[in-house]
Amino acid sequence: MTERTGDEPRISRKRRGEPVVRQVLEVTLQQLAAHGYERLSVPEVATLAGLNKTSVYRRWATKADLVREALTVSMGSAADVPNTGNLRTDLLLLARVAMGFVGSPLGMGVIRMLLAEGAHPDIRDLAASMFRQQEVVAPLVLFQRAMARGELAPDTDVKLALTTIAGALMHRIFIEQEEVTEAFLERLIDLMLRGMLPR
Amino acid sequence: MTERTGDEPRISRKRRGEPVVRQVLEVTLQQLAAHGYERLSVPEVATLAGLNKTSVYRRWATKADLVREALTVSMGSAADVPNTGNLRTDLLLLARVAMGFVGSPLGMGVIRMLLAEGAHPDIRDLAASMFRQQEVVAPLVLFQRAMARGELAPDTDVKLALTTIAGALMHRIFIEQEEVTEAFLERLIDLMLRGMLPR
Repeated sequence: MTERTGDEPRISRKRRGEPVVRQVLEVTLQQLAAHGYERLSVPEVATLAGLNKTSVYRRWATKADLVREALTVSMGSAADVPNTGNLRTDLLLLARVAMGFVGSPLGMGVIRMLLAEGAHPDIRDLAASMFRQQEVVAPLVLFQRAMARGELAPDTDVKLALTTIAGALMHRIFIEQEEVTEAFLERLIDLMLRGMLPR
Repeated sequence: MTERTGDEPRISRKRRGEPVVRQVLEVTLQQLAAHGYERLSVPEVATLAGLNKTSVYRRWATKADLVREALTVSMGSAADVPNTGNLRTDLLLLARVAMGFVGSPLGMGVIRMLLAEGAHPDIRDLAASMFRQQEVVAPLVLFQRAMARGELAPDTDVKLALTTIAGALMHRIFIEQEEVTEAFLERLIDLMLRGMLPR
């Protein structure tokens, strides 16, 4: 393994948007899609990104940390949650952003591998925490705002609604292998919203 | 590869429930879960089931045909669709039957492999046709009966409803890795039914 020193870019803990960080995360996703989690090698990711492994491990202590950040950044964070004042519009915007990654060849490759390796303890932890952070916590804000506006029944099961929307998209892409069209997204969200309206 | 002759059991085209057929299909599922579709070998399945490969190929002309029948039989056929006169009860019964396979270690192993190999042309065809045969056509009967009884809006998008129910179960099992409890099934089906009621 090539050890690089001196003139390589420094990876700061804070600057997530830095080109060097984005490069490492991009290489991580490509390696994940190509080889899966088990065979992903952090030293190899470092080499491909033009860094030495020590620099990478300084920022991401474990392979699981590196993969978690790569996935979190690709799927968008709570900061990206739209806020138009209308739940239907917000859900459509959010679904389109998620599809930008999940529906891309790279995103599909990564998710296929993670699904295949779902029995791996790191993937189990990752899937559980990603679901809490990304698909529940971020959209949770969006649903909470809608409840405050009276758009939803106050007893709406938000986690179930998200499981259902995310699951329908996943089924459409990975099982039926049909395109997620704008019309499909609208019909899906309308079905869920009718189920969640105040009675 | 061992070639067997003479005293091995005959595989009839008609008798799907025969022990020898069930044995071949069971071995096929085990090999799928262990090695995936690409690496599944029909001659090896034959050997493990105590048959020669000619007998297996006589009934299932291709690997895709063998895998399709193994999956169709495990997930239940249109003949198994319940008919209690109440859509909610029927959906719960059907979901429990599906979970018997999909939620088992063997079923999870098989589905993980099929998801991982989803880009394979055979799997693409299989997934598309399985979805039409199993998840749409079989439950379609169930929804049609409910529409005839006036339990559902006449313009209900049945395929979307099934994509959503199957997707939510898949997300719960493979992403969240949480148990599909009876309470979860009921909440899921109630959410969908509220979205599909006549307005």
